[in-house]
Parts: sequence; structure tokens; C-alpha cells
Amino acid sequence: MFLPNHGANPKQFVQALGLQSNEDALDFSVNTNPLGFPGAIKKNWLSYLHLIEEYPDPHGYDLKATIARKEQISINQILLGNGAAELIYLLAQTFRGQRVMIVEPSFSEYRDAAMAQHCRLSYFQLTAEAGWKLSVSELSKEFASVDVVFICHPNNPTGVVYDDHAWAELLSHAERLNTTVVVDEAFYDFCSAPISVLQHVHQFKNLVVLRSLTKMYSIPGIRLGYLAANEQLVKRLAKLQHPWNINGLAQVIGKVCLESASHVEETVSFVSAERNRLLSRCGELGFETSPSQVNFFLLKEPNLEDAMPLITYLIEREIIPRHTYNFRGLDGAYVRLAVKGEEANNKLLHALESWKQR
Amino acid sequence: MFLPNHGANPKQFVQALGLQSNEDALDFSVNTNPLGFPGAIKKNWLSYLHLIEEYPDPHGYDLKATIARKEQISINQILLGNGAAELIYLLAQTFRGQRVMIVEPSFSEYRDAAMAQHCRLSYFQLTAEAGWKLSVSELSKEFASVDVVFICHPNNPTGVVYDDHAWAELLSHAERLNTTVVVDEAFYDFCSAPISVLQHVHQFKNLVVLRSLTKMYSIPGIRLGYLAANEQLVKRLAKLQHPWNINGLAQVIGKVCLESASHVEETVSFVSAERNRLLSRCGELGFETSPSQVNFFLLKEPNLEDAMPLITYLIEREIIPRHTYNFRGLDGAYVRLAVKGEEANNKLLHALESWKQR
Repeated sequence: MFLPNHGANPKQFVQALGLQSNEDALDFSVNTNPLGFPGAIKKNWLSYLHLIEEYPDPHGYDLKATIARKEQISINQILLGNGAAELIYLLAQTFRGQRVMIVEPSFSEYRDAAMAQHCRLSYFQLTAEAGWKLSVSELSKEFASVDVVFICHPNNPTGVVYDDHAWAELLSHAERLNTTVVVDEAFYDFCSAPISVLQHVHQFKNLVVLRSLTKMYSIPGIRLGYLAANEQLVKRLAKLQHPWNINGLAQVIGKVCLESASHVEETVSFVSAERNRLLSRCGELGFETSPSQVNFFLLKEPNLEDAMPLITYLIEREIIPRHTYNFRGLDGAYVRLAVKGEEANNKLLHALESWKQR
Repeated sequence: MFLPNHGANPKQFVQALGLQSNEDALDFSVNTNPLGFPGAIKKNWLSYLHLIEEYPDPHGYDLKATIARKEQISINQILLGNGAAELIYLLAQTFRGQRVMIVEPSFSEYRDAAMAQHCRLSYFQLTAEAGWKLSVSELSKEFASVDVVFICHPNNPTGVVYDDHAWAELLSHAERLNTTVVVDEAFYDFCSAPISVLQHVHQFKNLVVLRSLTKMYSIPGIRLGYLAANEQLVKRLAKLQHPWNINGLAQVIGKVCLESASHVEETVSFVSAERNRLLSRCGELGFETSPSQVNFFLLKEPNLEDAMPLITYLIEREIIPRHTYNFRGLDGAYVRLAVKGEEANNKLLHALESWKQR
């Protein structure tokens, strides 16, 4: 059985399980914005056609300027990526053969990219018992023996946010030991409170912050992410990057997205209310959940060490969860569920209720 | 003076020269199809909007299947690229530190990619005296001391096609000496006669063929290229590639393009007639030109060792040529001119005539 390595691939997942694929099934394995992309994109769509026959700006100047203004950093501290995934692979190239530590469970591409570049991998395991929290003092002990550490924050797949005050301590300790800290903030903008460490790039030369526009702006089809870091590292990474890596639509649509502040506000408020409703009801039903602050969470049936019966049950009810077989330390015991629209979430709760009553 | 490394960047080029940038100027530095993109794309544009909020197929299966059918190769012999440029940088990664030879003058990205990967570079120089032709026997002598050779064919910037019968000889000689031959066929489909070496991937494990959809289908804004090679090399390259590297629009539009046979036929016939008209008239006017078989050609004013006066003259007449300062062996003596629409070509000829009469 070869399960897909990522969510948002419902058809392949269902077929790999030998189950019937249904076009109407609700995909709870995808973790993009349940409110969709900003309305301005649909409004402007016809005016974008000409972009396909123009060479994109090889330096993405306008888009970088928008990011620089928004994040209060310089254009030279920004590198654009064909999705954040390109940037992860680019980083791995510069860390080729080095000692890479990954805080797990986490996004599987850090591992795949590091392995493709023959890095020596080690893992720092978070646990359900500790509420999936990261202990900065424990992680810091490892820095002496690693060159790079990947931290996804808020974490995918738990949705958990770590203590605010701990970051400066972690970064300065890492700097003393010459360890680079890569913080993937793909979901930071779903949090109600500000949690980003991006401003620390002004102070710490060993910090790399990854961002994705895919999740909040629901544009996985056009591929857009960026990283913020010190100018020297950005320059070194840029040399490894091919020209015209950001397509013309991504450059223009990305700018529209970053200027859609009200869409973000509306999303955060909606997702927060729906997530709290889902977590609270799942708890009442007797499921274990991760204390997520974003648009997805982990769910476990306490009686099951392998979630497959629950996965099958949900798929038969047209609910497609994200399996966790390829998340280190979860090993298939959990499912990851997205926070979707109200009606979809009701269908999910209904299916979970009937699972408990079966 | 920092001139852009590529064409299709008219505004930056003109500004770098300290001249006035004019929105109405004709860009003869871009070498995409003068007939534009296939009509079906415009017709279907509204139906593509939903693609931006769906994750693209990470393996691009449908698009690969279309290519495989068209080229009579297997899906496993194909790797898709975010433009051919991504594939050049990916190849350079696998050739890291090796001895790379480039047949020059040629596309500057082979050099930039190889340098970023610390390859040892050498060059095989073509000359105007030899009609920009490649001597297979001369090049073959070099194979003993190189690991990889990059050949652009038809060549950019000359537009010249090499002898058909020479390829099998070159490839089998390279194979005996364990030299990889990368043939960039970005412009192969502008030729009236079939000139591709792609079918040789069945026989030669040391052949990599690069293709771009940018030029013939005039879609530089969405980024799409592919390579054909033996399965083992494709697998090795794929490991270095990040997931979702081909955006959703590129996957769907690419398929539409590859199924637009009549658009290609019409283009080849149009470009061939206009190119012959331009070359013939430029010859009458006393310019030297390269014997191009595609949609651009080199032009030289015999009296000038540096084309800058001609470049300035043309820009002042709203004609933007491609400078050749970063083409090895051209060193700015030539300009590269695209074959555009009839009216634009007439304006070009008019400007060249008045240059001669000044």
C-alpha cells in the first residue's frame, strides 16, 4: 500500500486504500483557507490573461517590494520561491552533507530535501504527553551537534504554537553554537495573536523564516512562497536559483493577496470560531485532539493504535482525513483534520458522532 | 553599465543604456512565437480560474502522458520543469564539480548554472567564418577531457541547425568516452524540416534533450519545459526536485499547447516566410546575418566591431534589439533580432534601411 506523502490528494489516497473514490467527498486533508482566495482575483481574472505571454520579472521586484513594506525588512533580505517547497530544497542544497535536525512530527519535505542532499539527519521528537509543546532548553542542548534545525511553527500537523518568550533565547543560543534555525511559518497568519519570529532576522544571522502564500490565500495552484533571512545567505541561495522561477501570474496574484488584509481578518475570525467549535465537540465525544491555534488539528480515537478503521469509516461517509503514517511519532495513530466551512464541519462532526455510536 | 543577461527585458535594457524607454517600442529581443499563444487558451481562460486553488498533480501525470504519446517515449523518460531553466540548474546539480564544456556562443544559463555548482568550465567556439556550423569531428576530440557538453540546437543566438547525419556519430563517440551530451531543443519546432535528436534517447544513455514550451507556444509567463533522457537519470534528477514544481495552470495549458498542431504548422510557415524575407533584405542592404532556420537571427554591420551605435540608432526608432555582449565570441559585435509579425518586421527593415542611408 503506497499512501500519498501529502494531503490534498484525496483521489489517490482513497484509491490506495482500495476504497471507492467519490467526487462529492469532502477533503479534510487539504489545509488551505476554507474561505478560498481573495475576491479581487476572480474580479481581475480576465485582465491576467496577457501575463502568460510575457516573461516574468526575473527578480520579482514588485512582489518583493510589497513583502518588504509589509514585513518591515529590506528587499535584499527576501528570496521568492516557486512555492515554499522550492526554498526548502534550495536550503538543503546549501546545507549539503551537513547535520540537520528536524523537530518532529512535521512536514515531510524537510527530511526528503535533506536526504536528497546527503545530510546527516537527526530528530527532536515532540509528544502528546507534553501537549506537543517544544521545550527550548531541551532542544538547545542538541545545538552543539547539529548545523541546521528545521522547526515548523505553528506546527504542521499539530497546529500547536510554542511559547513566545522562548524564541530569542533559542536563537541566541543557536547563534553562539553556529547553528542555523529554519522556522517554517506556513500557517502563522491563521493565528489570532501575532506569533511570527520574522522580525528577528534583523538581529540573528542564523535565522531563516519560510513563508507560504498557498495556505492563507488558497492559491496552491500558482505556487508562491518566500523566505526572509540575512542578505548574505539570501545572496548565496539566489545564485543556486534558476531565472524566472516565479511565474507571471504568481507575481501579480501574490501582490493582490498580500494587500487583502480584510480577507485575512475575516479568515482568522472564522477559522478560530469553527476550530474551537470542532475541538470542543470532539473532546465531548471522547476523542483526543491537539491544542491547535490554526486551521487543522490532530484527532485520535483513544482506543485505536492505528487510525485505519476510523479513516475507512470516515471515507465511507465522504469525509477524507489526512493519514499520519509518514509523520514521525504519530505513525498512523492520528488523523489530521482541516477546519473547513460550517456545513462541511457539521458533516464531519456528524460522522464522528455516528462513529462513537456505532 | 549593467545590461540584462537576457532578451525580453526591453525596459531594463533601454534604461541601462541611459536612453528613453518607450511603451510602444517593438521588442525584437524576445524570441517567442510572433503569432502568440494558441487560441484555445483565450477561449478556455475563464474555466482555468479554479486551478489556482487546487494543488497541482505533483507528478504532472496528464501532461507527461501527452508528451509521451507525442514523442513516442515512456512517461519515465520525462521530467517536467518550471521552465527549461529549472532543468538546466537541476542538471548542473548532478554534474556538480565536473568538467562541463559549452558550445558557444550560446544561452548563458548553462554557464551560470555550471558555475553555481563549481563545475570546471571549458568552451568550444563556433565562428562566423564557418557559418556558425558545428564540426562534430572537432568537438568529439574534446570528449576525452569533459564529462558533460551543452549544445543548443538549433543554436541560440545564431538560429543555425547542424548536419543531421552527424548526431549519431557524435552521441556514440561521447558514449564510448562516458561524456553526457545535453541538447537544448528550445527552438526545434520552428524548423521546417524535422531536426530533433529526441528519438536517440532510446539508444543513448548519455543523451539529455531539453525542451521548452515557452517559445513556440508563447507562454513565458506560466513556465514550462521538460527533458527527455534515460529512466535512471530522470529518477536521479527527480529526487533533487521539489514537489509541486509545475503549477496547475502550466499543467493544463501545456497540454492544450501540445495538442495545437495547426498552430505550430501555421507558425512554422509564417516564420519561415518572414525570416527569409528579412534575411534576404538584410543581405541586400549589406548586413552580415547568420543562416538561421528559426525565429531569430544574428545581424552585424560589417563596419562595426561594437554594435552599440546600431543598437542606439534602432532604439531611438522604437526597435529594441538583443545585445550580444554576454555571448562568448560575439562580444557585442552583433545584435540578435527576432522574426516578428509582418508589420513589425517592416518597421525593422525600414529602420535598417535608414541606418544605411544616414
